[in-house]
Amino acid sequence: MKHNLQTLFYPQGIAVVGASEDRGKLGYNITENLIRFGFPGEIYPVNPKHRVILGRKSYPSLDAITGPVDLVLSAVGARATVKVAEECSIPGIKALVAYAASFREVGRDGGRLEGELKETAERSGMAVLGPNTPGFINGNLPLNATFFPFKVQKGNVAIITQSGGVGGAIYRKALEENLSVGLWIGVGNRLNVDFADILLFLGQDETVDVVGIYMEATEKGEQLISAAREVTAIKPVVIYKAGRSKDADRLTLSHTGSLSGSEKVYKGLLKQAGLIYIDSVTELVSACKGLALAGKPGGERIGIITPSGGGSIVVFDLLKEQGCLLPAFAPGTENKIRDLMNNTSSVVYKNPLDLTTDGFEADLYGNVVEALAMDKNIDLILAIFPVHEYFPPPDDKLIEIRKKVGKPIIVYWIAIDLLDHEYSERRKVLESNGIPVFLLPEEAAWATRGLVNYHRNRMKGI
Amino acid sequence: MKHNLQTLFYPQGIAVVGASEDRGKLGYNITENLIRFGFPGEIYPVNPKHRVILGRKSYPSLDAITGPVDLVLSAVGARATVKVAEECSIPGIKALVAYAASFREVGRDGGRLEGELKETAERSGMAVLGPNTPGFINGNLPLNATFFPFKVQKGNVAIITQSGGVGGAIYRKALEENLSVGLWIGVGNRLNVDFADILLFLGQDETVDVVGIYMEATEKGEQLISAAREVTAIKPVVIYKAGRSKDADRLTLSHTGSLSGSEKVYKGLLKQAGLIYIDSVTELVSACKGLALAGKPGGERIGIITPSGGGSIVVFDLLKEQGCLLPAFAPGTENKIRDLMNNTSSVVYKNPLDLTTDGFEADLYGNVVEALAMDKNIDLILAIFPVHEYFPPPDDKLIEIRKKVGKPIIVYWIAIDLLDHEYSERRKVLESNGIPVFLLPEEAAWATRGLVNYHRNRMKGI
Repeated sequence: MKHNLQTLFYPQGIAVVGASEDRGKLGYNITENLIRFGFPGEIYPVNPKHRVILGRKSYPSLDAITGPVDLVLSAVGARATVKVAEECSIPGIKALVAYAASFREVGRDGGRLEGELKETAERSGMAVLGPNTPGFINGNLPLNATFFPFKVQKGNVAIITQSGGVGGAIYRKALEENLSVGLWIGVGNRLNVDFADILLFLGQDETVDVVGIYMEATEKGEQLISAAREVTAIKPVVIYKAGRSKDADRLTLSHTGSLSGSEKVYKGLLKQAGLIYIDSVTELVSACKGLALAGKPGGERIGIITPSGGGSIVVFDLLKEQGCLLPAFAPGTENKIRDLMNNTSSVVYKNPLDLTTDGFEADLYGNVVEALAMDKNIDLILAIFPVHEYFPPPDDKLIEIRKKVGKPIIVYWIAIDLLDHEYSERRKVLESNGIPVFLLPEEAAWATRGLVNYHRNRMKGI
Repeated sequence: MKHNLQTLFYPQGIAVVGASEDRGKLGYNITENLIRFGFPGEIYPVNPKHRVILGRKSYPSLDAITGPVDLVLSAVGARATVKVAEECSIPGIKALVAYAASFREVGRDGGRLEGELKETAERSGMAVLGPNTPGFINGNLPLNATFFPFKVQKGNVAIITQSGGVGGAIYRKALEENLSVGLWIGVGNRLNVDFADILLFLGQDETVDVVGIYMEATEKGEQLISAAREVTAIKPVVIYKAGRSKDADRLTLSHTGSLSGSEKVYKGLLKQAGLIYIDSVTELVSACKGLALAGKPGGERIGIITPSGGGSIVVFDLLKEQGCLLPAFAPGTENKIRDLMNNTSSVVYKNPLDLTTDGFEADLYGNVVEALAMDKNIDLILAIFPVHEYFPPPDDKLIEIRKKVGKPIIVYWIAIDLLDHEYSERRKVLESNGIPVFLLPEEAAWATRGLVNYHRNRMKGI
């Protein structure tokens, strides 16, 4: 299966069965996306009614294609997709994406059809993504094998999603946060490619540093747990498990044909397997971004510095909720900071360190961050500061500290206006230097918790 | 006090004590903001060292001003601010904003100074916003009386915040969501203008339809509860209470000089007083947006329609978490929808209604929404649909239904890419027609919960 997944996600020649020039048809969207987003391999439209589709030679059938095909995208309906799988098995094609819905998620008849598809796939050893999937994206090629007009880019984060809609929300939110999702995979009904298989594959993929999962349900819970143990030993995996209420079963069943199961059971098992368990789309993106950019902390002790009380209180609440540690600074550090601050009495020299309005001075702010970064009691730093024209940026100093000391730094920008071009550029500079920037206190806290929980898991040896 | 707050928040002549031309100085930022954001009344810079500041005549002292001053902005330090208050009391000025920090939040000496300020204020019956406040904004004038370069706009939402940083995050997130915050008020140390006073004032302000509060702590809990009872009978009030962990006390104390108190006690009391209690900055903005745009539902029964399972499952989890009702459709409605859908077997005709891929047809989608809107079992609608070039928009139909039937409609766009200009425009058209649009499933759910909780409070008669 591993070998087949490599073929599936990194194909060189792709045939689209049911390719079409009718806008609005699935076979149009899929063929158009292959071309538009620059798939560099061979593209073979298959449609007996046309000789040319979107400027490419069209073939009457799969077996009429002369060049090598390693992946087939089936843009036809459920029943026809079963036939496509049969046709794939003859020349020994090992990978198929089945977009069509109306399989087991619609009941008995669909279930029978899915059974046929599965039999064919297993007989010929073919990996089938779906059915009932939006497809996948691989920015490394680049390849957009979905029916969505996603922008495609390289990136060290991979997303596995059981929903095109929620997966789309993750993708868009990630773009907004400058987080590059390189691989995005919709699992659909998981005929023979389930969460566990994809997770193991991504564990081995060297372009992937962090995996994020949106899951509603799987029948292969044990395999997932076992795969999670293996992969989380190598790289962080963040999971958003939806379908939490008992009443959600009907929905997950009609969505991708599976039961969602008790939240408590799931949560405990997933966490024990080393997965970072989070509670919303935004938290998934924040945690993945923190882990993808800031790197791994050497411990879990957090130092917070801020010139504004409010932001740090929200962050503090959310960190304390998970028992995060904000230790006292080492005595030498406190003295260093007192000296920097001229020992002003308006500051309480504790962690979180609220510099109050004195902190609105970039050089001073940067020097205090450096003192914290050098503290042996502190493993990662959450730096809160405003971004507006009246506050000069401490960015260069932070980048210097990040490079010199190596401890993760997460930034929460107290942004008080929409980001104009200048600020967007500043943000990109920080982020390309391994300092993730967040614009909401909860997002900064979720990213910090992501790093802390990853460290805790590693310490438990899971 | 009520009368003084009208003067404070709707002034006609403003003096800035400590006005300056030095960029980076508080007195520069404040004077510059008055001019830049177009305050239409008189502006009187006060600084004995200059004759002209930022092109305006500068006065050596408050009593040298000949025209009428009803609000003084004190841009000087803590000790000097006490003197400014004294000087205000002589001509009987009734409103002062005290930006300076280093009052009771820094301990005993600051507390003594704050006591002096309070004495002066009470002797002369003067409303003092702050000290230790970022100031306030009133888009109705327009007036930016903060030291932040906020954009200023009219809008039917008012924000009261105990933190410039978190208040700034709320403001920015609101801008991003096309939610217009017309009044934004930083309470600071609440010398004699506390949450309760401002809330009562906003309850009477006809430009305000929804109030959002970010609170860490107040000593005047009883007054707040009493004000909340009064105001929530007229308009919705959403509250984010931070400083939840016991350890947060030290932070809230050094931030604005108050103790935060037990979360459980606060939560219970605030909810009983009719406040909508939420858990993050984003939830505050989502709930305010839903309430400000979608209007009040006649009941709390939600109908959900979607062509994608995933989004609805996340939304469903979050609604069920608060016991929201998703009733069965009336029999007539189910038949209507079956007819519209040609009775296809791939759809489960229940609420949430997942139309599956058949729902990707705009006319059909719009007609099904209409059937739901006409259902007597349904009070508000959450409409989920994708926004991308392959899905034609059902927007016009939704706007027509919203106008004709009058029930609130909340939209969750399954947006799979950053919003380009065209989509931003579509979003604005929907929103200016009373249909709020959200881009994340949790945000749509939080907005819906806001409407439901407001209705529940009204039914309880609180």
